[in-house]
Amino acid sequence: MIQPVTWIEDRVEFLDQTKLPNEESTFVAHTSDEVAEAISSMIVRGAPAIGISAAYGFALAWLEHGDSAAFEDAVNRLAVARPTAVNLMHGIKFMQQHLQKFTRMGTPNEKISELLIGEALGYHEADIAMNQEIGARGLEAILGIGPEDPRPEALGQKLKVITHCNTGSLATGGYGTALGIIRTLHKKKCIEEVFACETRPFLQGARLTAYELSKDNIPYKLLTDNMAAWLMQTEKIDAIVVGADRIARNGDTANKIGTLALAILAKQFKVPFYVAAPTTTIDLELADGSQIPVEERDKEEVLGYRNTVWAPEDAVAWNPAFDITPADLITGIVTEKFVWQPNDPDFPEFTSEAIL
Amino acid sequence: MIQPVTWIEDRVEFLDQTKLPNEESTFVAHTSDEVAEAISSMIVRGAPAIGISAAYGFALAWLEHGDSAAFEDAVNRLAVARPTAVNLMHGIKFMQQHLQKFTRMGTPNEKISELLIGEALGYHEADIAMNQEIGARGLEAILGIGPEDPRPEALGQKLKVITHCNTGSLATGGYGTALGIIRTLHKKKCIEEVFACETRPFLQGARLTAYELSKDNIPYKLLTDNMAAWLMQTEKIDAIVVGADRIARNGDTANKIGTLALAILAKQFKVPFYVAAPTTTIDLELADGSQIPVEERDKEEVLGYRNTVWAPEDAVAWNPAFDITPADLITGIVTEKFVWQPNDPDFPEFTSEAIL
Repeated sequence: MIQPVTWIEDRVEFLDQTKLPNEESTFVAHTSDEVAEAISSMIVRGAPAIGISAAYGFALAWLEHGDSAAFEDAVNRLAVARPTAVNLMHGIKFMQQHLQKFTRMGTPNEKISELLIGEALGYHEADIAMNQEIGARGLEAILGIGPEDPRPEALGQKLKVITHCNTGSLATGGYGTALGIIRTLHKKKCIEEVFACETRPFLQGARLTAYELSKDNIPYKLLTDNMAAWLMQTEKIDAIVVGADRIARNGDTANKIGTLALAILAKQFKVPFYVAAPTTTIDLELADGSQIPVEERDKEEVLGYRNTVWAPEDAVAWNPAFDITPADLITGIVTEKFVWQPNDPDFPEFTSEAIL
Repeated sequence: MIQPVTWIEDRVEFLDQTKLPNEESTFVAHTSDEVAEAISSMIVRGAPAIGISAAYGFALAWLEHGDSAAFEDAVNRLAVARPTAVNLMHGIKFMQQHLQKFTRMGTPNEKISELLIGEALGYHEADIAMNQEIGARGLEAILGIGPEDPRPEALGQKLKVITHCNTGSLATGGYGTALGIIRTLHKKKCIEEVFACETRPFLQGARLTAYELSKDNIPYKLLTDNMAAWLMQTEKIDAIVVGADRIARNGDTANKIGTLALAILAKQFKVPFYVAAPTTTIDLELADGSQIPVEERDKEEVLGYRNTVWAPEDAVAWNPAFDITPADLITGIVTEKFVWQPNDPDFPEFTSEAIL
């Protein structure tokens, strides 16, 4: 399986995602500043993968500086490597809590180094385990079988599944959310074909999802985003599975631009539409999607791709990075703990009790 | 107004569309073979523009060779410049009929040259006039006003309109079908803003429509195709206007890939959805859209854009050039003769009588 970030002895190795798919090169970080560089230059991207990298970076900062002002400075530089990445701070806070615990307990500094590395490794492993759990629950939801009931006839189904953006190993600790479900289905020999939308403007589907599917020998076809309707018209599609950036209490879901269109098309063609995300993506402070701010990015991304510009240079463009899919278009939100159907009248709203 | 093709004295001048939008250069054809080159290399593209170029090419062949086997050979080379372009043959047949008429009448060869140039110019003008008529009828349909009733309050409306692909001056004799309607609305000061979908994979929206809108100072924004749903969610859109490649008797419409998705989104957001095309686009031999063959093009177009490749080199891709929008998703088909509402129970099917 592809690993976006790996701890090896005293360093962190990154699969350089800026060079994918056609060049597989490794970026090695021996210091927390080099980890910050990997994050800010998008050598590593994807919210969970950034959080894991930050945890490893924290451990490297301690190895380098020990208990000192220089250590605090290094952690502060790490924390601002990408301004809006929530998971980056999550990874750092996780490590800080453990560091405070160890210092409170009077653990010697050399021993703390070892313990911090262990915590970061555990943080990474927990992410992979969570994704695998999402995969198992997604399989149940899509095939309609319970965990204790892996009926061979259900497993004998061959599904055609559409996905959007990259929600795979490269975006997470190494398995994936929506793409994790597809991996699990493939392991059970239940995938006929995956249709990966290229995901303009940044083309995560064409670059990263196609790369992951190729690597794992999962049969797939790449398509431009505007082909999905004609695909559903001409082929029987069994499910659409996408990730999520933020989910409100009522199930409204912010995800990569293009998700809303897929959800509306799914309704038209009666295709089940699933969102895959850990429960940490559900923001209990938000009653519904209208409260989710949508980031608008630079217009240059729309005028071309990287150094290739095809639109008039003076063109005006619109570039919302996300859209918000209303809960009533979502068949199920697959988390590591359960599958939530926001249209179920008995459980229309997510509460903190539900997570327990 | 932008002119994709212009007859000047004894030559044809093309605005080289392969170099647009960032370089405006002219390709000059003094011979029919050079016109064939312009067509085959896509210096000129768009069905009506190809037909007009072929008519001029025919006149050039006569100027060069007169009544000879060499003339026939030159016309044959012109006829195969693009294999599937119906309008190319339409332009040549139009000229052949006139040539036959002139020779039957015993017109001297030098005089025939002059007359053929006149016919080609007339063919070109007729296309522009037809587009302007489509524009006028589109204005009526969208604003809800009759030709005799240009109520100032109706004209005072400011509309937000989405379009797809390029259906403008560059694709036609010099005005446009769907973009012709937008031009007419703009002339009447009824355009607030045009939203141009980039139209992957070949990016006609980003390259050509954005160029035309910039040139004509029509306010617009460029967006990736997958942003249209979020646009309709966040802005009140008054109409979607697209072109057509082929329309069946029941109104099912083949057009550039991505059109079907826009039509389904229009239904979801209750936005009127118009198709603009001359009556010659309606194929009376086809009962419905299921009989329209959809061309699949080379996968390389999906893996990147021209020499820029972003997907894995071994990626499998799907590349249908068109999709078919069912008539029940179409508010009106705007032709040069009338606006046909395929969902009108009194006129559900197009007949040849209707054209008369």
